[in-house]
Amino acid sequence: MNQLTTLLVSCPDRRGIVAALAQVLSGHGANILDADQHSDASTGKFFQRIRFDESDLHTDRGTLDRAIHELAERFEMDYRIDRGERPKRVAIFVSKTDHCLFDLLWRKRVGELVCEIPLIVSNHPDLGPVAEAFNIPFVHLPITPENKAEQEKKQLALLDEHGIELVILARYMQILSDEFLRKFPGKVINIHHSFLPAFIGSKPYHRAHERGVKLIGATAHYATADLDEGPIIEQDVVRCSHRDSVEDLIRKGRDLEKLVLARAVRLHLENRILTYANKTVVFD
Amino acid sequence: MNQLTTLLVSCPDRRGIVAALAQVLSGHGANILDADQHSDASTGKFFQRIRFDESDLHTDRGTLDRAIHELAERFEMDYRIDRGERPKRVAIFVSKTDHCLFDLLWRKRVGELVCEIPLIVSNHPDLGPVAEAFNIPFVHLPITPENKAEQEKKQLALLDEHGIELVILARYMQILSDEFLRKFPGKVINIHHSFLPAFIGSKPYHRAHERGVKLIGATAHYATADLDEGPIIEQDVVRCSHRDSVEDLIRKGRDLEKLVLARAVRLHLENRILTYANKTVVFD
Amino acid sequence: MNQLTTLLVSCPDRRGIVAALAQVLSGHGANILDADQHSDASTGKFFQRIRFDESDLHTDRGTLDRAIHELAERFEMDYRIDRGERPKRVAIFVSKTDHCLFDLLWRKRVGELVCEIPLIVSNHPDLGPVAEAFNIPFVHLPITPENKAEQEKKQLALLDEHGIELVILARYMQILSDEFLRKFPGKVINIHHSFLPAFIGSKPYHRAHERGVKLIGATAHYATADLDEGPIIEQDVVRCSHRDSVEDLIRKGRDLEKLVLARAVRLHLENRILTYANKTVVFD
Amino acid sequence: MNQLTTLLVSCPDRRGIVAALAQVLSGHGANILDADQHSDASTGKFFQRIRFDESDLHTDRGTLDRAIHELAERFEMDYRIDRGERPKRVAIFVSKTDHCLFDLLWRKRVGELVCEIPLIVSNHPDLGPVAEAFNIPFVHLPITPENKAEQEKKQLALLDEHGIELVILARYMQILSDEFLRKFPGKVINIHHSFLPAFIGSKPYHRAHERGVKLIGATAHYATADLDEGPIIEQDVVRCSHRDSVEDLIRKGRDLEKLVLARAVRLHLENRILTYANKTVVFD
Repeated sequence: MNQLTTLLVSCPDRRGIVAALAQVLSGHGANILDADQHSDASTGKFFQRIRFDESDLHTDRGTLDRAIHELAERFEMDYRIDRGERPKRVAIFVSKTDHCLFDLLWRKRVGELVCEIPLIVSNHPDLGPVAEAFNIPFVHLPITPENKAEQEKKQLALLDEHGIELVILARYMQILSDEFLRKFPGKVINIHHSFLPAFIGSKPYHRAHERGVKLIGATAHYATADLDEGPIIEQDVVRCSHRDSVEDLIRKGRDLEKLVLARAVRLHLENRILTYANKTVVFD
Repeated sequence: MNQLTTLLVSCPDRRGIVAALAQVLSGHGANILDADQHSDASTGKFFQRIRFDESDLHTDRGTLDRAIHELAERFEMDYRIDRGERPKRVAIFVSKTDHCLFDLLWRKRVGELVCEIPLIVSNHPDLGPVAEAFNIPFVHLPITPENKAEQEKKQLALLDEHGIELVILARYMQILSDEFLRKFPGKVINIHHSFLPAFIGSKPYHRAHERGVKLIGATAHYATADLDEGPIIEQDVVRCSHRDSVEDLIRKGRDLEKLVLARAVRLHLENRILTYANKTVVFD
Repeated sequence: MNQLTTLLVSCPDRRGIVAALAQVLSGHGANILDADQHSDASTGKFFQRIRFDESDLHTDRGTLDRAIHELAERFEMDYRIDRGERPKRVAIFVSKTDHCLFDLLWRKRVGELVCEIPLIVSNHPDLGPVAEAFNIPFVHLPITPENKAEQEKKQLALLDEHGIELVILARYMQILSDEFLRKFPGKVINIHHSFLPAFIGSKPYHRAHERGVKLIGATAHYATADLDEGPIIEQDVVRCSHRDSVEDLIRKGRDLEKLVLARAVRLHLENRILTYANKTVVFD
Repeated sequence: MNQLTTLLVSCPDRRGIVAALAQVLSGHGANILDADQHSDASTGKFFQRIRFDESDLHTDRGTLDRAIHELAERFEMDYRIDRGERPKRVAIFVSKTDHCLFDLLWRKRVGELVCEIPLIVSNHPDLGPVAEAFNIPFVHLPITPENKAEQEKKQLALLDEHGIELVILARYMQILSDEFLRKFPGKVINIHHSFLPAFIGSKPYHRAHERGVKLIGATAHYATADLDEGPIIEQDVVRCSHRDSVEDLIRKGRDLEKLVLARAVRLHLENRILTYANKTVVFD
């Protein structure tokens, strides 16, 4: 019976890192099954994702963890160990449209997304029945300009109470405050439409139609406090033409948004993403 | 032996247009082989491309042309008749990179692009040998801030002298003046990279790399005088990842630019594009 | 208030068809909004889809219908008139996997698929709860080699009873008999995986994995009695690599199957498909 | 100044391989820049590509090579070391169509494909001028059923004489004998069209058109002696419709074939491909 552990590392790129990590793991009896790495020449950063089997450790996990910790100090590593002992706990934020929510809940149910979803939060009551159909608690917190700060506090309390480790904005049509996002760095995934050229402002599909674009796209990214748009996780496009009405574009956009968001969430849940300098390394 | 004629029509959308056009053509003995049409509900505009065979006309072409002209006046049509009696005459503007030029000349040679190319213009001498290899006159007109207006006059004189009907900017790294573009409305096709989100300014592939995009794109469009970016003809994208260096992005971008530009030029040469309100209807 | 009617025509390609149809419609006061056509040179066949508005008919629909009928006789046309007075009635056949069923029911609910779904038939009880969640009658008809003919009779009786006009095989893992399919010519849509190169037999994703394909695909087609595989409606692919396990291929395949089947069903419901010589003309 | 070396390894999957390789390299002062690996659970095989810098070796290359050799014996590794001291030597085989040849020669010239091309072989004289334009020797060896064996001997002698390490079949319309292919195992890359469903026999684009496919594809693979079709390196598709004539399919196919073949050749030249069990691991 394998005991699979994932180690994610990022640090300044220096000679000997790969060998040092391999030696520490191997020296403790861990069997490396999979190792993917990346060096970014322009920033001088090194990234690695190692999956290893601990079923024949010579020592115990505590000893191995200390050895990794020492190595991390030597190489100035940020690192994360995930032993997959329990699925990540996820909250989904929605507004009125259900395509992404439905898709995520279905993928969770058939086992594509390995996680717990103990909480769905919405600023509208519309999607309560969907949550109910999947037996997930649904909390309706209406947002007005006046109560927004207060409601965010309630949201944060709920996330805390449920031990939430990832927030998915599944077409949640509210902008989260910087305070909120700073409390969940790299732990809020958002999906939005993308066009070539880009459009700013409301009714983007109407504006894309006016502009006569031949492709529409969607981008999943981490939401960040200080930037308009955080690190991009995944993107995709679909062709369109003058034959497509605004409604056709919106329909095609829904399919894209579902797929792109689901792929991004899956990559996150499987510890395949490292972020730096407002971009991602995705070890797929 | 078929005598294929293409009629392109755009006008305010009114009842009876389709039937009226079909009757005029049929009444003169023209056989409609192909008709594609589009109504744009938001602007109330109607567009049609009809291909018909004139080999069994009851009358002559002059009579048919007059009948079409009368109909056009009644329905306030803009229209264009192309009897394909001779290939369109095309000039290619280039700077230093040869991927689009090479690709266009190869496609011309194998018959994919039906046109004459009597002229290649460049602000650098580098691609002279490519022009020579394909036996096409190459004119080197260096551009400086001081001589730009003067050189554009020479370019326009050359286009006039060679009876040029389409200018392809095949990675021509100079901005054409409004005066130039106003003389070739809807007759200058440009290709440029496109990203999600969009980047403005120089070194776009470097900036796309910094931003960590997962797709890079290219857009072919008509160059227009009064707008940053004219009607989009064709777009496409290719996937990329953190594994791609800036050089990889540039390489992938070259392949995209070649394909997207060649498709746009082909659609134009086959009279498949109608423009209005800064966008295109592409009857492919 | 528009009264939109769709006319689908296929016939031997002869001169004057386009004009004759336009005249008949126009002469009765119908306003042609949209006309798409295709001539297949190799078979000499002509196809057209016309959408017209009958709100200002000079005569009545019966008179128009008779005029179309006369024209159809003259040009040996097969034709179909759909006034969209009521949505098509659709039955979905499933076995145990729910991804296509779920997706179709969701698209029906949000209005992407305009149809009635009064019946879900399955050879297994597993998806009863899904049908129930969407309030659709679910009939469990187990199939064994012994009872197959008998159960098909029951299926046909159900389809008859519910006035079913389209059967969607949404991963229904039984082969329908020729007798069944002859009773629904061009009215049974199936979805299956497709690979390059093709694999025959069971466990196709396992075999695709063994073969090391770099793309997996899905094809939606009409099921036909006398052919291994009927007219193709829609196809798409997704990239894969050595990193994908069999489970990854199956997961990616599910997403493809959902999308491709939904697109095919939509095209059928909107009367956009004409079939001939075991292939389709899709006026999208 | 980096001295980049690539090590490609395949062997039975056993614990400790990753660490052992890292230690040997690191212990001799090699700096691992990049390591990609793959374990195939179904066959129990392990694959790795390591790129390392030898500019600060404590020992010399001979000593390092011996150490790697000892490790390889212990783990029953097949391995290959490429120090990139000189570009691979490549021959291109063609018949009459020039699209792939032109594309490969252009990519070689602009530096996308790092290789030497000292030889173009053809069974027809048609592409001699293309070879000449790029200053590459062109050998015309006409093939008839009678002289085929004899001509293959001449081809093999030429390949030997020019020290050829890779043969690219760039639309070479002859089938190479098993004897020929056995002399170049994993060193002959072929490109062919691919369709869903697959077609066997001649005039495949005509048959695809008859079948009404909605996608056409191309596959680049290693040619092998004992199998209809060797390990797949790269595949791609492009959409088509009833509007596409056979000529349109052929034209779209040309673009695909060029792109897919060029990608496959590039992956091979960069030592990114390992083959086993008639499939490939592509470390891109």
